[in-house]
Amino acid sequence: MLRRCTFALAVVGSIVAPISAQNQQRHDDKKPLVLASQGSFFVGGESKTVTPTPPAGGDPGPRAGLLAAPGEITVNQMYVQYQIPPRGDQHVPVVMVHGCCLSSKTWETTPDGRIGWSEYFVRKERPVYLADQVSRARSGFDPTTFNAVRSGSVPPTQLPTILAATHQVAWTVFRFGPRFNEPFPDGQFPIESVDELYKQMIPDLNSVLPTPNPTWKNMAALAVRLKGAILMGHSESGFFPEQAALLDPTSIRGVISIEMPCQTTLTPAQISTLAKIPTLIMFGDHLGDVQGGPANWAMSFESCQKFVQQLKAAGGDAEMMHLPALGIRGNSHMLMQDRNSSQLADLVLAWIDKHVEARKPKK
Amino acid sequence: MLRRCTFALAVVGSIVAPISAQNQQRHDDKKPLVLASQGSFFVGGESKTVTPTPPAGGDPGPRAGLLAAPGEITVNQMYVQYQIPPRGDQHVPVVMVHGCCLSSKTWETTPDGRIGWSEYFVRKERPVYLADQVSRARSGFDPTTFNAVRSGSVPPTQLPTILAATHQVAWTVFRFGPRFNEPFPDGQFPIESVDELYKQMIPDLNSVLPTPNPTWKNMAALAVRLKGAILMGHSESGFFPEQAALLDPTSIRGVISIEMPCQTTLTPAQISTLAKIPTLIMFGDHLGDVQGGPANWAMSFESCQKFVQQLKAAGGDAEMMHLPALGIRGNSHMLMQDRNSSQLADLVLAWIDKHVEARKPKK
Repeated sequence: MLRRCTFALAVVGSIVAPISAQNQQRHDDKKPLVLASQGSFFVGGESKTVTPTPPAGGDPGPRAGLLAAPGEITVNQMYVQYQIPPRGDQHVPVVMVHGCCLSSKTWETTPDGRIGWSEYFVRKERPVYLADQVSRARSGFDPTTFNAVRSGSVPPTQLPTILAATHQVAWTVFRFGPRFNEPFPDGQFPIESVDELYKQMIPDLNSVLPTPNPTWKNMAALAVRLKGAILMGHSESGFFPEQAALLDPTSIRGVISIEMPCQTTLTPAQISTLAKIPTLIMFGDHLGDVQGGPANWAMSFESCQKFVQQLKAAGGDAEMMHLPALGIRGNSHMLMQDRNSSQLADLVLAWIDKHVEARKPKK
Repeated sequence: MLRRCTFALAVVGSIVAPISAQNQQRHDDKKPLVLASQGSFFVGGESKTVTPTPPAGGDPGPRAGLLAAPGEITVNQMYVQYQIPPRGDQHVPVVMVHGCCLSSKTWETTPDGRIGWSEYFVRKERPVYLADQVSRARSGFDPTTFNAVRSGSVPPTQLPTILAATHQVAWTVFRFGPRFNEPFPDGQFPIESVDELYKQMIPDLNSVLPTPNPTWKNMAALAVRLKGAILMGHSESGFFPEQAALLDPTSIRGVISIEMPCQTTLTPAQISTLAKIPTLIMFGDHLGDVQGGPANWAMSFESCQKFVQQLKAAGGDAEMMHLPALGIRGNSHMLMQDRNSSQLADLVLAWIDKHVEARKPKK
């Protein structure tokens, strides 16, 4: 009986400790936030001449004049929103890029109302830059083909695909549970607030983009503009930091890739380029536990295991952070929004300190 | 000669004073910014069942599975990003909504790199809420009809119009000068940075919206959620605060409408509803000085003059702030980005203090 009580107390103790730490964290998150500066700007973008054709069908309304005359529009620009904390110049800036059917909202207030990684990193003295992918959200998209189809000059079969992931697709791709509306018992995603996540999901127009994706070039250019930056991608954009580095590695100080398929057919020269940049890959739990859906996370994980080995074989500093291997269970694909998101952020920050900042000459 | 010198000195004095004030302002803008809290959330939004049809033409790529199965998507939600300064609870929150072909970027860093109205208002202790209109930017849009046309189930003539305002249209509608690339000599817009404005211009999908525009309902709901708010609109959204108030005036403490056509055919009951809310209308300069283009600002101004008279006749506290009438010359349609944007913000803040805050019981 005594042994049982001791065991019970030990269990209580192990539960109480994290809750207390969580409360401390929530208390810290509510302290006033001090910023040295904040703002927004665009990276990239070029002029494109558009020659509108008269709209087919009836009167499109009183604003038709806006469409009638030929002229230039700007396309392929990338909107970036940033916050720099007071001691931010002591740290390498972190650029966060969202995944499919999402925007930079990914990194802000979580669906259940906690602070997101963006503010958390700022509170840990990191300058943070949130980029809306080119063709998404505040970056806008090139509407030329849509309007050409409308006017009849291009057949509707050439209309770009607009990805609109349903709640059902999100549930399985984001690994909230084995089947739609059935959560994993140990799932970390705040599933009672899943409707707030669904509101974040917006149409994905990446199919209108030229090749290579302008976001890659813009991410590399942003690193140059910042005189050094860590690039972070997630899911659809998970491998974008690597793609950016393959275009221009000069100012990319670190790469953080969260949950995506890795390319394993890169040339030795490409691997050599990437091996010069410290690289962290993160994966959550239940990779093989979801039935159906368009994603195969177990296969993605395998491809990234192989990629990490390729980087290491080329002398690179590459790490696969598979959370269950660290004893951290139940994380979804949206791990930056999971209940333990601050704990995961701390892991990323510790990796940055050790693998990127330690390399940097202190100012 | 003496008289001449005195005159010259007087002129120099009148020039030096504002520059010194500007320098002081720039100095203040560079002080650390302290926030009690910040974050983002959504207002409104409902589920819509989508039944994708097989895409016409060839293989749309490896992500086709995302489109293949029927399910629900969320539409008509409005993304809101907010910052609350330490003494923010002493003031009425201000909700800012952008215009056509723009996003909340409108209110952030100006094209020439100064702080925007959003941060300026926060630095003046006002809680600020930036809303991306429904169907724009981080609020997303309903892509159903586009994909129905692509699959062949709806004819291309029913494709929604996507407004993409060209640089040429922007120049004239935003009143940067009499003709494209010819600025007004006294123009306040930082015309050397006009390319940065063009990057802010993104496709406008308001044509996909149901009637009434869900943004109106969401703005009224946001005011309720905030337990009282001032609603500010600009251009396309200039009359949205009034439209929101006509749906639910209960928590709308003030209305600020910047440069738009006003509705002058409202019923006496509608005018009576709006007359209970303090209302400020703002217009800049050169209203009749631009040739061509789809906007007629002189006519818009006249309609708002009439609207203000209607509100006053119904006992309302309504003000037409026509900047040239105050001796402030050269303001463009993008007056929140003009060189004197902080001066104009001060005028708005003074109006809020006198007409909204003075009515509010102090906490």
